[in-house]
Amino acid sequence: MKHLRRLRITLRPIGFVRTKATEQDFRKHRQNIVSEIVLNDEYAKGLKGIEEYSHLFVLFWLHKVGKSERKQILTHPKHREDLPELGIFSTRQRNHPNPIGLTVVRLLERRWNILKVKNLDALDETPVLDIKPYNQRDIPETIRVPKRWKQTQS
Amino acid sequence: MKHLRRLRITLRPIGFVRTKATEQDFRKHRQNIVSEIVLNDEYAKGLKGIEEYSHLFVLFWLHKVGKSERKQILTHPKHREDLPELGIFSTRQRNHPNPIGLTVVRLLERRWNILKVKNLDALDETPVLDIKPYNQRDIPETIRVPKRWKQTQS
Repeated sequence: MKHLRRLRITLRPIGFVRTKATEQDFRKHRQNIVSEIVLNDEYAKGLKGIEEYSHLFVLFWLHKVGKSERKQILTHPKHREDLPELGIFSTRQRNHPNPIGLTVVRLLERRWNILKVKNLDALDETPVLDIKPYNQRDIPETIRVPKRWKQTQS
Repeated sequence: MKHLRRLRITLRPIGFVRTKATEQDFRKHRQNIVSEIVLNDEYAKGLKGIEEYSHLFVLFWLHKVGKSERKQILTHPKHREDLPELGIFSTRQRNHPNPIGLTVVRLLERRWNILKVKNLDALDETPVLDIKPYNQRDIPETIRVPKRWKQTQS
């Protein structure tokens, strides 16, 4: 166990996001944004059969998050100082200690090494770490979320 | 963009999985397995408010996947040679180029830096990379999966 505590994990991108959408666009209508995931050529074959799925998990590296942001442990939700602080792992904010983005996207089209997807909240040039098909096991029977969450959705 | 192509990303575990379940147990009744996620002390406060969610995403490092396994691009589903090959990204197999595990777990209890969870398919001592709350946005309205998937579920 001790040897694992000091573990350093090294990853390399499998591809990159290509999009014209700006940060403002994501705030306004993220759900409608269509982006491309351009995989490195050597991974193109790794997409064989992916068209059979309607939705995918995309894991990506939030390369704009700075070192000091990765040290934040408590945070005011939505940058509102009047709301009580939450732990960083109780939020979907980007600045987690390991800033790995995770989004469920809709797969619109595949062209060899390129996936056209909807709802990916990642900026242009974001390094992509992994892609996984989304299936029924990813949907719990019922879920419970905080009240404040429902309020911000209505 | 060129500078990003050679990017090396370094991560460190935020904690570890603690479980008595064996690989055989996971194959037999994964959904019923209760494990603990023991966060490093410095991240305990990062869990503040997490009890308000019933389900979490756990991202973990599949430390048992070897270097050569990470190079596999095509695979026979369920190790069955009679089934046509699929791209590695079209499966939930562990041996992706960046072997990051992703599971939706049910949160049963929090005790300071320890989360007791159900359905985590990770072996004892697995390094944990990130924890995110699961919310409605993670559930698409409808999903489509390959027929073979439904067959293996029935």
